[in-house]
Amino acid sequence: MAEAPPIRLDGETRIFPILGHPIGQVKSPAALTAIMAERGFNGLVVPLHILPQALDGWLGQAAAMRNVDGIVITVPHKAAALAHCARVSARGRAAGAVNILIREGDGWAGDATDGQGCLDAVAAAGFDVAGKSALLVGAGGAGSAIAWEILARGASDLALHDVDTARRDALIARLSADFPGRVRAGSPDPRGFALVANATPLGMRPDDPLPVQVQHLTPDQMVSDVVTRPAVPALIAAARERGCRTATGTAMFDAQAVLLAEMLMGLRRID
Amino acid sequence: MAEAPPIRLDGETRIFPILGHPIGQVKSPAALTAIMAERGFNGLVVPLHILPQALDGWLGQAAAMRNVDGIVITVPHKAAALAHCARVSARGRAAGAVNILIREGDGWAGDATDGQGCLDAVAAAGFDVAGKSALLVGAGGAGSAIAWEILARGASDLALHDVDTARRDALIARLSADFPGRVRAGSPDPRGFALVANATPLGMRPDDPLPVQVQHLTPDQMVSDVVTRPAVPALIAAARERGCRTATGTAMFDAQAVLLAEMLMGLRRID
Repeated sequence: MAEAPPIRLDGETRIFPILGHPIGQVKSPAALTAIMAERGFNGLVVPLHILPQALDGWLGQAAAMRNVDGIVITVPHKAAALAHCARVSARGRAAGAVNILIREGDGWAGDATDGQGCLDAVAAAGFDVAGKSALLVGAGGAGSAIAWEILARGASDLALHDVDTARRDALIARLSADFPGRVRAGSPDPRGFALVANATPLGMRPDDPLPVQVQHLTPDQMVSDVVTRPAVPALIAAARERGCRTATGTAMFDAQAVLLAEMLMGLRRID
Repeated sequence: MAEAPPIRLDGETRIFPILGHPIGQVKSPAALTAIMAERGFNGLVVPLHILPQALDGWLGQAAAMRNVDGIVITVPHKAAALAHCARVSARGRAAGAVNILIREGDGWAGDATDGQGCLDAVAAAGFDVAGKSALLVGAGGAGSAIAWEILARGASDLALHDVDTARRDALIARLSADFPGRVRAGSPDPRGFALVANATPLGMRPDDPLPVQVQHLTPDQMVSDVVTRPAVPALIAAARERGCRTATGTAMFDAQAVLLAEMLMGLRRID
């Protein structure tokens, strides 16, 4: 960020809160604001620490802030924010959660961009999922969004693995409504998949088990991970050792930051 | 502001909204944020455009934003914000309005700093009002705060002039409760007063009448004005021509910005 243009701050600045609990860890305010500044847009992404029990009250009056055109939603508010949307994208409905609200009149349109961020990072690493098979580990919020996006971008089939089999099966059922016959239960065995994606937090702690059996990875495979800390988690390190192409959580964050900033600036519409 | 340190923006940044309608004209976000940055404080003063009918709803949930320790209030919300204070300074009660809220637990303490800003600017110009007589024109929100401060800083007596005589008399009655026998009705004639202060918007437009009879000003007098645009309004220009010391609205804004920033940073308590 050191080379970024200085942040503008005056009465005309458009304000975009990011809501989270806790909030100290968020990197989006600086990242998204820097993208806006680079584009010559007078906007500021501002962290707001909102407790879960206060979210409904806060969002209920958010449209009254007339210089707020969009709101970024992070952990743990993504599912609860869905109820405040007058309109939700297919991605948001599939994820059961939204991470961005964009003003439409006096209401909000909601979208879930985790899947796009992940697949944009995968695409930037030179991999096109269309027509290929994929394994995804993790059927939570991020996993749901990534699964939907893998299928929406034309994967031939998707295997889902989650230790919580009820959560896995519920996601398979939701996805099958939009993409019949292309989703099934999987396992940690990555053999035979062109794309192997981790959407669990496994890898954040040094003693975490690996999300997939990395000894079976082969150089023709693409491996992606949502974990951002450490920058190179064990799965990515193992995949690189075995010659795979990789897309890290940081690459996903960067791709998503561009997407979110463009949506907040009104350059991309929620469809 | 060009020499100011760069604005910090991360998850730890303390956020201080400034509420107004309209909001495009406010200079406080940049001015107060720059003071914070100069002091090494990670804070950001953010403009929020709140419609009058939305103010109560917004302030009603404001304490839920856990990284918001203070709120700056500007036109037209100063009087309405008073009702949201769990505690109000004597200055705020006298003004019937507050321009800053500071978090105290789950509630807000309110203060009115317009008077302090004006009198700090007057003091910075080398004038001590203690023991001296003053004329103040304008009994509105800013005038009320300035009148209280003139008396609180020990002026021997204060004459108040306002074309709205009912408003003038109501303010005289309020002030007399705190400062009995030291306030009376005045006129636009400045003769005999050590301090001559304008708290009306007269001077913002080129064809405005002057708030006092400037032909009677003498070099021993101190003249202050709340008008910030133009930077040198007609009253200040005439006073300078006649050899008076002066304190402009811009000097008052600058003095008040330091005061507000120090309150937001927790360096000054509302008493």
